[in-house]
Amino acid sequence: MDSLAFIEANLDRFRDELDDFLRIPSVSAKSEHDGDTRAAAEWLCARLSEAGLDAGISETPGHPIVVAEWRGAGSDAPTVLIYGHYDVQPPEPLELWDSPPFEPTVRDGRIYARGSADDKGQLYMHVKALEASLADGGTLPVNVVVVAEGEEEVGSPNLVPFVQAHAERLDSELVLISDTGWFTPDLPALGFSLRGLAYFELHVRGANTDLHSGEFGGAVANPANALARIVASLHDERGRVAIPGFYDDVLEWDAETRARIAALPHSDVDFAASLALAELSGEEGFSTLERLWIRPTCDVCGLISGYTGEGAKTVLPNHAVAKVSFRLVPNQTPERVKALFEAHVDTVRPPGVRVEVRELHGGRPWKAALGGPAFEAAADALEEAFGTRPVPMGGGGSIPIVVDFEETLDASALLVGFSQPGCNLHAPNEWLGVENFEKGIGALARLYQRLG
Amino acid sequence: MDSLAFIEANLDRFRDELDDFLRIPSVSAKSEHDGDTRAAAEWLCARLSEAGLDAGISETPGHPIVVAEWRGAGSDAPTVLIYGHYDVQPPEPLELWDSPPFEPTVRDGRIYARGSADDKGQLYMHVKALEASLADGGTLPVNVVVVAEGEEEVGSPNLVPFVQAHAERLDSELVLISDTGWFTPDLPALGFSLRGLAYFELHVRGANTDLHSGEFGGAVANPANALARIVASLHDERGRVAIPGFYDDVLEWDAETRARIAALPHSDVDFAASLALAELSGEEGFSTLERLWIRPTCDVCGLISGYTGEGAKTVLPNHAVAKVSFRLVPNQTPERVKALFEAHVDTVRPPGVRVEVRELHGGRPWKAALGGPAFEAAADALEEAFGTRPVPMGGGGSIPIVVDFEETLDASALLVGFSQPGCNLHAPNEWLGVENFEKGIGALARLYQRLG
Repeated sequence: MDSLAFIEANLDRFRDELDDFLRIPSVSAKSEHDGDTRAAAEWLCARLSEAGLDAGISETPGHPIVVAEWRGAGSDAPTVLIYGHYDVQPPEPLELWDSPPFEPTVRDGRIYARGSADDKGQLYMHVKALEASLADGGTLPVNVVVVAEGEEEVGSPNLVPFVQAHAERLDSELVLISDTGWFTPDLPALGFSLRGLAYFELHVRGANTDLHSGEFGGAVANPANALARIVASLHDERGRVAIPGFYDDVLEWDAETRARIAALPHSDVDFAASLALAELSGEEGFSTLERLWIRPTCDVCGLISGYTGEGAKTVLPNHAVAKVSFRLVPNQTPERVKALFEAHVDTVRPPGVRVEVRELHGGRPWKAALGGPAFEAAADALEEAFGTRPVPMGGGGSIPIVVDFEETLDASALLVGFSQPGCNLHAPNEWLGVENFEKGIGALARLYQRLG
Repeated sequence: MDSLAFIEANLDRFRDELDDFLRIPSVSAKSEHDGDTRAAAEWLCARLSEAGLDAGISETPGHPIVVAEWRGAGSDAPTVLIYGHYDVQPPEPLELWDSPPFEPTVRDGRIYARGSADDKGQLYMHVKALEASLADGGTLPVNVVVVAEGEEEVGSPNLVPFVQAHAERLDSELVLISDTGWFTPDLPALGFSLRGLAYFELHVRGANTDLHSGEFGGAVANPANALARIVASLHDERGRVAIPGFYDDVLEWDAETRARIAALPHSDVDFAASLALAELSGEEGFSTLERLWIRPTCDVCGLISGYTGEGAKTVLPNHAVAKVSFRLVPNQTPERVKALFEAHVDTVRPPGVRVEVRELHGGRPWKAALGGPAFEAAADALEEAFGTRPVPMGGGGSIPIVVDFEETLDASALLVGFSQPGCNLHAPNEWLGVENFEKGIGALARLYQRLG
């Protein structure tokens, strides 16, 4: 029996097992679920073992990392590292779930459960594709290392140190990740980019205390006004970030990529309508998808100053804060953006206030070639499994560990995801399509064979 | 015995009575103190009666108004209306008081108690000056009406309707108010200006929900960035309000007033140091005192948008709010400023967001002539009582009822205050100088005689 026939014959069992996996509330952010998170690691380790891999649990200062290896392709064959995560986002607010988050429920062809799409369901598709590939004396043309962490939803604090410490054991040519989605409900996608992140708090301070706006207003700089002035200076009239040097490192994307983005089935009208917006807005000279995927941004994520309660309190605040987030594109770095941002803030600082920039978070952008053997192998495998050739899709968000894997292991990453738009990642009623789960296992089994 | 001798002979009793008045916690903002607030009105009414006036309590939808009259000067003589308030600010935070707020305590020549300066102490100086003037068959060259409200600290919602309804009975040539202070601890002052107020909430709205700043950032307008842009547009590089037409109604103050302001003993260095500021800031071409008293402002009193907790939440907010307060000078009006502000916001609104301006509060500015019989009479009386001729002093804050009195009664207002800088109005450890209380009673008795 070949692997595809094995999958077909065992789908019911695979679905039951996935339900078992999803029932474990492995919420990494909450210490009350530490036992559940470890149980999920142990459960996953056992399934990888049963699938024919040499599986074990590696301790970290936080939640453990499951590592499973199959080296049957021999030392001359390439190695593929499959990365996923077994932890999930907190399910709250619980009252907005139509069925309990940790009781998987199928409705309208969708498996509703926390973690179904992000990422237990997609990770488990690999486990089953590996099992099917190795069943009945089956074999793979590549060696495989599975690395499944339990801290992705809390920022992966222990993953990079682990990969660095075990770089030789984890040495791979390709890092395969299924933690993304399709472009439309019917159109599979292969990821070709992710934006990086540089996130700061900008503090503006004035006098030693809040002041009466009548007694002092007009003769003392107002930190809230000053903050607004600084934030406003971050963009020009064309929607570009106005920090000198900000675009120096920004990659001018190649014409082919821009042409393929332009060919995607996207409607600005529908996009705006879905957000109840009368008009879109962004950098001149770029389409909506380009603005989301291949152009950097500067967005304020929060503002706070002075009196924010009901009514008209006449206070001149002595402190104002903005959370300022930059999304980065190749070849920007958080370090360089921080230096430029700080220099700019210092330049535009209005008189009478002090400013401070605090770095909260940084992550590098990623891009992949729109082609090459692995990319084409994945496109072929998905087309065979789903009947539709995948499109290249950029990512507006940030998955910093993709770049970390590539650099630490000197590998290339391939993002092959199976969730569909509207699948409620990080929100109530998260779901994964039953068909995508079932056909996706076959797609992955096909892909492994093509990577040799 | 003349009135000054009477005051001298009765100072101990006056101080004891003031202590009794200050012990009544007439906190108008708190309904749990409604009984205390009424008790303060009744106590005050009784003292005015004892002083020789025809005193009574007038009910309002809120706290009552105490009205007391002495018409002994005859219908051909002018009438002076003395306005004050018997309610006080809440005393919280209690832990910052060095002695209990409603247990008057003398330290270093200061009477510490909530309401000592604002305004029970100053109001009671008038009661005692009237008593002294009328004692032993004494008489006044003017008729007197005392109007003491119990809602000044909650915005005087019932005062103007009361004055309008009783305009004939309250008809006066002069409205005398002791609810302000001195320019320095040793330098008495007469008020010549107050700024008006126009206070708004500016709402900026985007999509129908908060968005992920990675998934949507760059293609959707950010209301927090847009708010900053609008707020920044409210000032130009010279520190002027940049709303077209904003200065059209602004009075260019006369050279004499500016010269007298310039002659006041003020140090920018000391002023900045008292606020721990390295530098001051404001409208080019005007001194600090001019910026505070005779020039309008635009100050943000509060900002709120998106995520303001700890750490780096990557949200693109769909709503941002600024509390925007304008201090107005003659001849600006809140109505005109509102229209100009709305038109400006509409003009500078960035694409992709909706804006809304909500009016929260308005009050008109006030100015007095630096001279005239009443002004000179007050200057003479203060100089006689304290040995120092008072200086003219502007007010950066707003007391809208001053203009309301003037307009409703076709009268002029005279602001003769006795609190001293640093007296902790609306703050813990409010105080009134013992000497200012005692000598101030004599100053007021002298003033009454000079108004005939």
